[in-house]
Amino acid sequence: MSSQFTDFTHYKQERTALIDHDRSLRRDNSESKVSPAEARADAILRALREKENSCVWGADHEDVLHPFPGMGFLTGRDMILQTKLFKILAKMPKGALLHAHLDATVNAEFVLKLALEQPAFHVRAVESLSALNISKILPEIKALPQELFTHSDLSLTDLSYMPSTWVSLKKARETFDPALGGPEGFDKWVVDAMTLEVAEGKSIISKGVIGGLTSAAATLSHSTVDEVASEHIHRLLITNTHRFGKNSIKHSEFLQHVSLLTFTPLWEPYIYEFLRSSVEDGISYVEVRVNFFPKYMVGGDGQENVPHSAWLKSFDDTLNRFKADLKQQGREDEFIGARIIYSTVRSISVEELDWFCEDCIALKKEFPHLIVGFDLVGPENTLKPLIYYAESLLRFRERQKELGLDIPFILHAGETLGDGTEADVNLYDAILLGTLRIGHGFSLIKHPKLMEMCRERNILIEVCPISNEILRLTSSMLMHPLPTLMNNGLPVALCSDDPAMFGNMGLSFDFYQVLVASQVTGLIALRELARDSLKYSTLEPSEKQRAIGAWEKRWEKFVEYILLEGGKEGTC
Amino acid sequence: MSSQFTDFTHYKQERTALIDHDRSLRRDNSESKVSPAEARADAILRALREKENSCVWGADHEDVLHPFPGMGFLTGRDMILQTKLFKILAKMPKGALLHAHLDATVNAEFVLKLALEQPAFHVRAVESLSALNISKILPEIKALPQELFTHSDLSLTDLSYMPSTWVSLKKARETFDPALGGPEGFDKWVVDAMTLEVAEGKSIISKGVIGGLTSAAATLSHSTVDEVASEHIHRLLITNTHRFGKNSIKHSEFLQHVSLLTFTPLWEPYIYEFLRSSVEDGISYVEVRVNFFPKYMVGGDGQENVPHSAWLKSFDDTLNRFKADLKQQGREDEFIGARIIYSTVRSISVEELDWFCEDCIALKKEFPHLIVGFDLVGPENTLKPLIYYAESLLRFRERQKELGLDIPFILHAGETLGDGTEADVNLYDAILLGTLRIGHGFSLIKHPKLMEMCRERNILIEVCPISNEILRLTSSMLMHPLPTLMNNGLPVALCSDDPAMFGNMGLSFDFYQVLVASQVTGLIALRELARDSLKYSTLEPSEKQRAIGAWEKRWEKFVEYILLEGGKEGTC
Repeated sequence: MSSQFTDFTHYKQERTALIDHDRSLRRDNSESKVSPAEARADAILRALREKENSCVWGADHEDVLHPFPGMGFLTGRDMILQTKLFKILAKMPKGALLHAHLDATVNAEFVLKLALEQPAFHVRAVESLSALNISKILPEIKALPQELFTHSDLSLTDLSYMPSTWVSLKKARETFDPALGGPEGFDKWVVDAMTLEVAEGKSIISKGVIGGLTSAAATLSHSTVDEVASEHIHRLLITNTHRFGKNSIKHSEFLQHVSLLTFTPLWEPYIYEFLRSSVEDGISYVEVRVNFFPKYMVGGDGQENVPHSAWLKSFDDTLNRFKADLKQQGREDEFIGARIIYSTVRSISVEELDWFCEDCIALKKEFPHLIVGFDLVGPENTLKPLIYYAESLLRFRERQKELGLDIPFILHAGETLGDGTEADVNLYDAILLGTLRIGHGFSLIKHPKLMEMCRERNILIEVCPISNEILRLTSSMLMHPLPTLMNNGLPVALCSDDPAMFGNMGLSFDFYQVLVASQVTGLIALRELARDSLKYSTLEPSEKQRAIGAWEKRWEKFVEYILLEGGKEGTC
Repeated sequence: MSSQFTDFTHYKQERTALIDHDRSLRRDNSESKVSPAEARADAILRALREKENSCVWGADHEDVLHPFPGMGFLTGRDMILQTKLFKILAKMPKGALLHAHLDATVNAEFVLKLALEQPAFHVRAVESLSALNISKILPEIKALPQELFTHSDLSLTDLSYMPSTWVSLKKARETFDPALGGPEGFDKWVVDAMTLEVAEGKSIISKGVIGGLTSAAATLSHSTVDEVASEHIHRLLITNTHRFGKNSIKHSEFLQHVSLLTFTPLWEPYIYEFLRSSVEDGISYVEVRVNFFPKYMVGGDGQENVPHSAWLKSFDDTLNRFKADLKQQGREDEFIGARIIYSTVRSISVEELDWFCEDCIALKKEFPHLIVGFDLVGPENTLKPLIYYAESLLRFRERQKELGLDIPFILHAGETLGDGTEADVNLYDAILLGTLRIGHGFSLIKHPKLMEMCRERNILIEVCPISNEILRLTSSMLMHPLPTLMNNGLPVALCSDDPAMFGNMGLSFDFYQVLVASQVTGLIALRELARDSLKYSTLEPSEKQRAIGAWEKRWEKFVEYILLEGGKEGTC
């Protein structure tokens, strides 16, 4: 084939037309309306990105060797916080948070503080703690019924501490050996167990990321993975009920570890803090996945007997209290509301699923404004594929029709590096089952027909950039499939997934990582991502219109803020 | 949106239809003819893959922590060699090798052996070598004119060695300190400087992989990169003229370092070995990129005065000798021929490019059967974009038309992680300039319109899996965009790029990595990849038909071989 151009001017015209054509499916394409103020603000953001990509990310840093924009989040986090671009994005109205697991949305320090206020919480360790073993021994924390409260004065760090004896959480903190940092040392010990550190993040093992290939995947450093892995998974289990599922360890052990977050006296302040911190980051609406796999929560009396409907009653009360507080501060336009995607774990049997479906229907009847979707969570590569549940899920939809209910599927699918593995094939089932949105859809770009269907059927992809990177589906934002999704015109919302675990609280970090790793994405793309998060929510048309209207007003102010900030001194 | 199925049987039918539809663009789709023997052989390969993915890649290994199929090649190479699947693939008729740089196609041990036979070759070091500094000091090797031959008896490892004094290569080897391994220690010192080792591969810095972002990219380990990087690039410069380009170091230094491979007495045996080893791996035809950036080669007399036409005369002679040798062995059906893609480096000025274009035309006139394409090589992220040369390249095509010549562009484009960077944007120019194939096209999947154009215009993508992974565009085969290209129906050929540098000699390793990292790709996909490599070559229709016919006969034998091997004991 030969080139058809003889005239370079003609060539350049055709080139511009081709680039435009190639990008015409993007939701921030040339046809989308851009105000003069937005155009100026976009230029400011792009110039700032170019400058900081060079003067921040291109410079030498003491702690970070060879930094680059879009690099591993845990390593680059402190550098991100220094940038002016991040400071600007922190002010951006984000729209909705559509994909987050409630049990990993509030930071560990806060959770610990809450737990310390509850006399029911006790802690134990498998042996007395010392400087030698503290980094290897994990705390086990549990709310006990009053009759089991211990009045032992023995510190966990005392040589005579009896292995696995419960000690009151507060007392354990107060009596923590000063040589191990005293109370602050205790806090660090517990918080470290609930979060990821850089070293772990770099070497995290995603056992089974490639599913059918039966292997540990995509580990970057081949040196320390082994030691970190099992400890790591145990750590995460303390706070994380959905990520590793009950298959990772025995069921009883699983429930034992997660009890920190399934204690009713913690539930309300936890939810309140989730909403508060979300709003603080510019999020005006959330659809949060709540894992109903544990049938009961532990009540204030230490008895594990609080049913799901009581959870929702609490959720509703807290939500209303939060709204009232905002209103009192004259900030009611900053928050539309919060809703729940009912979730259980994809390791259960079909019979158990039927029970959860009925439970979901009962909750929907009681709290129609709260329950707005249904999902199955847990690692796709190791747990059961959607096809295993498909027949039961079809029946669930039929049941809803009979009852005049609508609880759409909002399913995780394709959170995998596999090509044709069960986790990858989940994408076909999610779409055939009529999923409203797709959670992750990381492997979706491999599927031309499914890409087309998502575009035509307006199926939004809940993309979790930092989560994907930390869990090693991609090594940095530069390898992430997001640009392919965006250039193919698929609606996308950026999501934080498990922010308490990854440290990407709010959505500012995810937006930052996406913005700096592209030369195509600019302010208008951010606008469309934010707007789409509301547009593809489950809000009813009138509520949606109101939410988008409120967001648009805030967006205008944000654009003004950029224009104002643009004239000021930068980071470097 | 709700699901439209009430009947699970109906659901399953629609599901099968959807998966088929999604994969219908693939070149190994259901419409492609599969013989009963091929179907059986495919089942054997798939079963073997599943077995070895578990029993080899899923097992514990002493030297490799957490291995997995498709893992980093330098780390996994020894494990690959143990597999039965690799042994089978080594017998596969590969078709054509369409993307390889001649200066990195023959293994370093062989090159050193050739060099040792040439008295003109001398070596020097910046200081006397000892156990302390040997890992840090690089050899500089050069063919000298006779009047500069040294007759010094001083060893490079002698304390009294005068820094930077030339010593005969042979003598330097013979006198290498036994404490440093003697002659074998010398060989190791030189060969190490010419190849990548695991540690380097893991921490290789792809300075500028993301182009406009001005940063070091996608490094996995953040620990040792710094020290390795500059040494590493210098090492590669010894043998590799295209990968780092003249921008990396000063021009004179560049030419000085590459002289090992631009010495005419080495040229013919080097080419012969390239052809021999390719045929040994089942490759029946090559289109190799030759870098004509150095205007002269150093002749046997040590003078740098051998012009391009003499290179081609040598190439032609060697090719004919190789063919005659094959014929004498009754193996003429194993090899169709070799052709050259004229290449220069994309750091030159437009005026210099005009000179190279004229040079290319002159060579095409003299060797019309050898010169079959034109390319600009060198790292896209740091050197000049195609648009810089576009006007000149359009003129070049016009000149060809006037002269009745056809030297199609076969351009590198999109070998980058950038999104909208100059290297990424090169894809638009390559296609607008009428490129026959695309070298790498790593970022092509981001561009829906260009994907469509490649499919419609039959532009084959020269995919280099192992090269991409070692140069850190992907962390493993699991993150490689190849499945997306294949599922979108683009013609693809697998290529080795710089096998002498990466250790992926032949094409068996690249085919292996691709096969084990997918559950979709099987024998028929391998067949189409191999057949397409011939179909999309520059061979004239009748030659092409003959080449494909010969390849098909060998393919049938290969299928029989799999059926035979399938019954035998496996690896585990």
